[in-house]
Amino acid sequence: MDRLSATGPTGIHDHLLAHPDVKVLFTDEAHIAGMLAFEAALARAEADCGVIPAGAGDAITEAIATLTIAPASLSEPTRDDGVPVPELVRQIRAHVGGDAAQYVHWGATSQDVIDTSFMLRLRHAVDMIAGELRRTGDALAQLTEANSDTVMLGRTRAMHAVPTTFGAKTAVWLGMIARHLARYAELKPRLGAHVVSLGGAVGTRSILGEDGAAVLARMGPELGLDTAPSEGVWHTARDVLTEALGWAAHASVSLGKAGADILDLASNDVAEVSVPGGASSTMPNKVNPIAAEMLVTLARANATAVSGVLHGGLQAHERGGDGWTVEWIFAPDILVHSFTAARTAADLMAGLKPRADRMRANLDAGLGLPYAEMASFALAKVLPRPDAQAAVKAACQKAAAEGSQLRPLLEALNDDVDWDTVFADPWIAESARNPIDAALAEWAKVANAG
Amino acid sequence: MDRLSATGPTGIHDHLLAHPDVKVLFTDEAHIAGMLAFEAALARAEADCGVIPAGAGDAITEAIATLTIAPASLSEPTRDDGVPVPELVRQIRAHVGGDAAQYVHWGATSQDVIDTSFMLRLRHAVDMIAGELRRTGDALAQLTEANSDTVMLGRTRAMHAVPTTFGAKTAVWLGMIARHLARYAELKPRLGAHVVSLGGAVGTRSILGEDGAAVLARMGPELGLDTAPSEGVWHTARDVLTEALGWAAHASVSLGKAGADILDLASNDVAEVSVPGGASSTMPNKVNPIAAEMLVTLARANATAVSGVLHGGLQAHERGGDGWTVEWIFAPDILVHSFTAARTAADLMAGLKPRADRMRANLDAGLGLPYAEMASFALAKVLPRPDAQAAVKAACQKAAAEGSQLRPLLEALNDDVDWDTVFADPWIAESARNPIDAALAEWAKVANAG
Amino acid sequence: MDRLSATGPTGIHDHLLAHPDVKVLFTDEAHIAGMLAFEAALARAEADCGVIPAGAGDAITEAIATLTIAPASLSEPTRDDGVPVPELVRQIRAHVGGDAAQYVHWGATSQDVIDTSFMLRLRHAVDMIAGELRRTGDALAQLTEANSDTVMLGRTRAMHAVPTTFGAKTAVWLGMIARHLARYAELKPRLGAHVVSLGGAVGTRSILGEDGAAVLARMGPELGLDTAPSEGVWHTARDVLTEALGWAAHASVSLGKAGADILDLASNDVAEVSVPGGASSTMPNKVNPIAAEMLVTLARANATAVSGVLHGGLQAHERGGDGWTVEWIFAPDILVHSFTAARTAADLMAGLKPRADRMRANLDAGLGLPYAEMASFALAKVLPRPDAQAAVKAACQKAAAEGSQLRPLLEALNDDVDWDTVFADPWIAESARNPIDAALAEWAKVANAG
Amino acid sequence: MDRLSATGPTGIHDHLLAHPDVKVLFTDEAHIAGMLAFEAALARAEADCGVIPAGAGDAITEAIATLTIAPASLSEPTRDDGVPVPELVRQIRAHVGGDAAQYVHWGATSQDVIDTSFMLRLRHAVDMIAGELRRTGDALAQLTEANSDTVMLGRTRAMHAVPTTFGAKTAVWLGMIARHLARYAELKPRLGAHVVSLGGAVGTRSILGEDGAAVLARMGPELGLDTAPSEGVWHTARDVLTEALGWAAHASVSLGKAGADILDLASNDVAEVSVPGGASSTMPNKVNPIAAEMLVTLARANATAVSGVLHGGLQAHERGGDGWTVEWIFAPDILVHSFTAARTAADLMAGLKPRADRMRANLDAGLGLPYAEMASFALAKVLPRPDAQAAVKAACQKAAAEGSQLRPLLEALNDDVDWDTVFADPWIAESARNPIDAALAEWAKVANAG
Repeated sequence: MDRLSATGPTGIHDHLLAHPDVKVLFTDEAHIAGMLAFEAALARAEADCGVIPAGAGDAITEAIATLTIAPASLSEPTRDDGVPVPELVRQIRAHVGGDAAQYVHWGATSQDVIDTSFMLRLRHAVDMIAGELRRTGDALAQLTEANSDTVMLGRTRAMHAVPTTFGAKTAVWLGMIARHLARYAELKPRLGAHVVSLGGAVGTRSILGEDGAAVLARMGPELGLDTAPSEGVWHTARDVLTEALGWAAHASVSLGKAGADILDLASNDVAEVSVPGGASSTMPNKVNPIAAEMLVTLARANATAVSGVLHGGLQAHERGGDGWTVEWIFAPDILVHSFTAARTAADLMAGLKPRADRMRANLDAGLGLPYAEMASFALAKVLPRPDAQAAVKAACQKAAAEGSQLRPLLEALNDDVDWDTVFADPWIAESARNPIDAALAEWAKVANAG
Repeated sequence: MDRLSATGPTGIHDHLLAHPDVKVLFTDEAHIAGMLAFEAALARAEADCGVIPAGAGDAITEAIATLTIAPASLSEPTRDDGVPVPELVRQIRAHVGGDAAQYVHWGATSQDVIDTSFMLRLRHAVDMIAGELRRTGDALAQLTEANSDTVMLGRTRAMHAVPTTFGAKTAVWLGMIARHLARYAELKPRLGAHVVSLGGAVGTRSILGEDGAAVLARMGPELGLDTAPSEGVWHTARDVLTEALGWAAHASVSLGKAGADILDLASNDVAEVSVPGGASSTMPNKVNPIAAEMLVTLARANATAVSGVLHGGLQAHERGGDGWTVEWIFAPDILVHSFTAARTAADLMAGLKPRADRMRANLDAGLGLPYAEMASFALAKVLPRPDAQAAVKAACQKAAAEGSQLRPLLEALNDDVDWDTVFADPWIAESARNPIDAALAEWAKVANAG
Repeated sequence: MDRLSATGPTGIHDHLLAHPDVKVLFTDEAHIAGMLAFEAALARAEADCGVIPAGAGDAITEAIATLTIAPASLSEPTRDDGVPVPELVRQIRAHVGGDAAQYVHWGATSQDVIDTSFMLRLRHAVDMIAGELRRTGDALAQLTEANSDTVMLGRTRAMHAVPTTFGAKTAVWLGMIARHLARYAELKPRLGAHVVSLGGAVGTRSILGEDGAAVLARMGPELGLDTAPSEGVWHTARDVLTEALGWAAHASVSLGKAGADILDLASNDVAEVSVPGGASSTMPNKVNPIAAEMLVTLARANATAVSGVLHGGLQAHERGGDGWTVEWIFAPDILVHSFTAARTAADLMAGLKPRADRMRANLDAGLGLPYAEMASFALAKVLPRPDAQAAVKAACQKAAAEGSQLRPLLEALNDDVDWDTVFADPWIAESARNPIDAALAEWAKVANAG
Repeated sequence: MDRLSATGPTGIHDHLLAHPDVKVLFTDEAHIAGMLAFEAALARAEADCGVIPAGAGDAITEAIATLTIAPASLSEPTRDDGVPVPELVRQIRAHVGGDAAQYVHWGATSQDVIDTSFMLRLRHAVDMIAGELRRTGDALAQLTEANSDTVMLGRTRAMHAVPTTFGAKTAVWLGMIARHLARYAELKPRLGAHVVSLGGAVGTRSILGEDGAAVLARMGPELGLDTAPSEGVWHTARDVLTEALGWAAHASVSLGKAGADILDLASNDVAEVSVPGGASSTMPNKVNPIAAEMLVTLARANATAVSGVLHGGLQAHERGGDGWTVEWIFAPDILVHSFTAARTAADLMAGLKPRADRMRANLDAGLGLPYAEMASFALAKVLPRPDAQAAVKAACQKAAAEGSQLRPLLEALNDDVDWDTVFADPWIAESARNPIDAALAEWAKVANAG
């Protein structure tokens, strides 16, 4: 779970792929802190419920507050035990000392400690991702409003299609972000209820007996949760964890789609947006659209890694080691990559500048062919549509072959059509208005929520 | 999308891996039917809205009702065009004939036709999966209630751990199913709003102009939908489709976890449940737990395929061919496999019989070692816990080495402990009661809903 | 294994995604044929080795030759048994009749029948893929030779970089194809030795005893193999099968890279190659580069599916049902997709036409900036390199900002440099020559082999 | 590439999942060392070839020898540039100083530096994995020889099937390891030729011109390679890198299969092998088979991650940022996990102890049913096989229902059969001998090679 663990100095690729603000959640140190928080909260909750002596709760809390556990001290024991908890508990007990020591970890199992430590951090990472999605959405809503009549080429299957607006394009991205935040709102209570794990050896809180539910309930507030823990046991029911990771991965896939669009729009061949970019080590002429590329990279990484956690979801019987450990490998990566993507996207969208002049120039360079669909429907008002479509198609082919403009060819064909309207801007922005408004409305709903 | 397309006679592996009830949704014929339904509904909606002549709407609807399109007739055109729609529209027009023919497919693009055809069937498949999950959950709720005090070994990391009950085990499975149905309820309105696609060439309904939204709204009821279509355009915003597929895949992963447990419980080495099984071609002695195996198979297939649709989610600009076509490959498989898993699980759970005698025998064969945790806590009431734990551990090792029972060793150690209580059943079922009740409560909430 | 099973009329997407020439290998009918071939070869081999009566071998062979088994007749038994073999053997025995019937399937297990049937077809598909790769490579070698001095923009990280040649680009594709054929040559003997499976119930050929190895050896020629079967048993050692599928998937990923390049080169925004294309259902102006897109689609499908067969590789003990069945789901898809990609690529490369004029125009539209690296090194001969690089960078920024040509700015900067040479073609083709020759040499080695 | 970068103290999970011996290859520090090694070797090679002044080669080499670059100093520049190389080169130049500074990185591009740094370490990791596979194979060969007549239950589809030997089981594992080493031998020359990358900006070594090939050739020995670098350019031809990673992943999948078998054999329910194991934090009675579990974990991690690098293989044009960066994420993980698995397997196999007594006891507990197949064939010598099979099946059902032994039921049925032979050991070990010998022969071939 803590394998992205370069603590101390920032790693080479951290700002690119594993933002320090989130990576810090998944260091060995953070895992140890999470496990210690579990053991302290457990002791206090058990003392409150009269499961262990009142003094033991205090003694354990105080001792843990002053305890430092070095990750390296857990490494070989973790190889032998499969988990760091037996050695961690040993160190806590040694530090607590005296009579209270025996009450450390009372009634819990290793997986309770590790899952709670991880879910505390997962939940935090999910909130952070949602925060960056909100920033991304705000920037996109602004871009969408501001460019609802910025006319540009629509592109389908790599080809110039029909004119659209830049606002219509960003509205598609915005709609996805809005829905990811709507899903986040639905996920949150389920996630909140599945942060504290307290199942004991086989998920029955055997040792705690009739006090189990009370201790569990108490641990929620002790760990700062605002949702009551579910009394169900999820040692091997990984669906909430997997749902949260799936949400994070899906969000980054949507950002990857936007990134891929921007990468192409920013390319020299299209050049319809400008983005801040990076230097080449050998070519003085280059400015690389790195942030957009990284959105694609992180999307593909997550599209793959989510498969890993799903495979990991098949965990045997009351607790299964192999699938569980697969989670440790992929889960932090997904969260780190998803947050890094969302942060990168928020910054990128805030700095994204459409180049309306170049959009216009690329559209104009198309000999009027992108207006062919509209022309064929306009002509279909005075001719049967198949005839109209065939005539326009022939005109398109002639224009393309000769490198000449489509419009005069059409004018020559028929002068009953209002070609000025066909080859003018207003219909483009007007037709794009409705889907734009729909996306903005979806955004308004989640932007004002929580 | 329709590649699981063996129509007519049932395929060898259909009942095993691709249940005919769902496979029929994803045949070529079903795809053609879905596309024709789109074109008919579009024509009626456009006629209603005055976009095309009233008579054209009727003529197109009537013609489509009598039109048969052979899949093979679309095959080579689909290779050339990347989509079957141009050739399909050509055949519809030829069949409609006359003046009305030109109004076929008015203002739509290929992707509108294909996506709507697919989403109609996806939505149906999702409902069918939910229905089988409900059956599965009902069976599990019953098993859970009935076995809340059926004592058995808890197993963690492949080893005998602490006794639990069979009801506690099925409660873990049940909790997952309950939550998948809760997610289904959340997903449904989003999914309902993203069945009809009507974006036109570049997602702006360009040709329909100000009538676009009205035509779209009208198509909902025409296609039998009870949720109004979103006015947003999702040609390249695939998040709702991906969410639904992710849901279906996650559900089958949870079923796979239950399947893996049952596979092990049904094995000759454990033999704690009995399930209907299959014959061997060479070994007269064997009965194979096929259904449980298939739950694992289908879970792994979906855990992998979901990655494919996520990668497919990066679709370029206004419409991107390569990612979209990746969906066609994996999406029907996920739905077919998820439904087949859910149907298999529902049947399996309904026929699953715990063998309480064998559970007891396996527990008894353990020399009392599964009671070691409870013993060490009982002893910790009279000794410091570290001493208690060390003493019990030593006793366990002695018992294991000598093949003797743990209890007499403990009795020899200390006679202040009520060993009768430790080595008796009541605490087992009592401690399992709370998580069982939690799962039953989760189930009650969704079982009574929709 | 036979789930792509639409027999009879060709499916909608067959020519696009699942070429009929290979799909036919993975129909239910082909699987039945393969299983019957196994049973016939087994009977003959066993008769030859004296394991069964000589007459039984003939009787079984003759009966199988006239036996038709309907896939649908196996479907429900396969659900119950997990495999079609018990019912298939029952039908064969009924058809053979008499005394010989009992000798059908003597000493084999279901997995022997199914694996052999599949590997016979896998091996054939692998050969077919290699054949199409050879065609692809031939076309690429020709394109490479013919365009070794066709100057065009090099593009890195989506940006215009430094000029290269079209031949250098196709040489990169060619090198990959050459190496895939080299790997094919290495794989072939291993694959040939792992077509016939004859392990019996638990991989020891128990029933055949000391005759096992002889029967196995005999089955090779009976099934038309030129490599002797390995005497090792691979019921749960899936590495050769996985290796072959991995090879097929890797090959299609390489083709996907070429496809993605072509898709971008064929786009209206770049327009540097022309390819045959497909129609739009609504836009008369469009010609979509479908074949290139499909190479990307099929690459991504295989990049995902290969993960499925690797997960499937964890098969328990002597024979494990769940992982094995996962293979049935993904393995035929990989082969079908890989062949379809290779066939598509071979055709695409044969029809691919670089548009040298447009390549030149795009290069010329770049204000000379793509020559910046060469200019900075030329200038570094008369200035320290950092100064040269800084000066060229400044000139580039000025040119880009003003939309003016780079060359006059550089001439103004320094007239000791031979700017004619920097801004001329020869160095471009000359520097590309060596990697081109390397790829052609790699190709020559495999093109002349096998 | 260096994201597993916790340097200094060992991380919590290192010994479990990311063995320090290999993790050290993929730290930031190791990446910097690799990049510096590239720049030094380039300078020396270029000086030797007269591309840069002789003194510059020495000055650069000497300066690099005393240069320390802190990873953190590269982190923000890497975010901006997408690669650490521009900042790394800046620091090298600043450290070299004087006239020689300008000759640093002469004619190379960022990708040359990064790919070479990575491939040097990948090649080393691949050798290390092969070394551990050799150790694993040696241990397995010994186990196989030693247990060729250790009789145990064969298990198929989770059920008791027919008796086999422990040697036959380990022979299946051994065969896979032998073939992975055979593939390693084939891969090695291809890999050796693709360690040094020197393509320059667009893969034509543009700046080096006619000296390019000579500089490249020279860099091989400078970097300690014994295979001459390919003159082909592979900036976006990732097949060799992917092949090596695929090999490493496949190897760990095979180890995962063995691990899964051992996990089940070591479980309390089977208990047929003993392995060293780990402690539980709460249950005194437990010893968990951690190493076997981790083989499964690492196999599943790699089965997933290999999909990531395949998707990453679609890299655009002359150099593509997004796919390339995906490699950085998954490639080191695959190598680290594969090595850790191989090391774990080697140790596990060396310590694995079959428990022949327990194997016998489990077999004997089966009422003789595992002998049913042999019994039915023995009976088929005196009765028609269908009758024999039916009779044995009925006897099996009776035995299972009554919990009685199969043998007396068969003896009552027919006394012409030599039941002593059927229910005795010799045929078991004899039938297993041939596949065992085949695996040992495969092993002998690779064990004596390289």
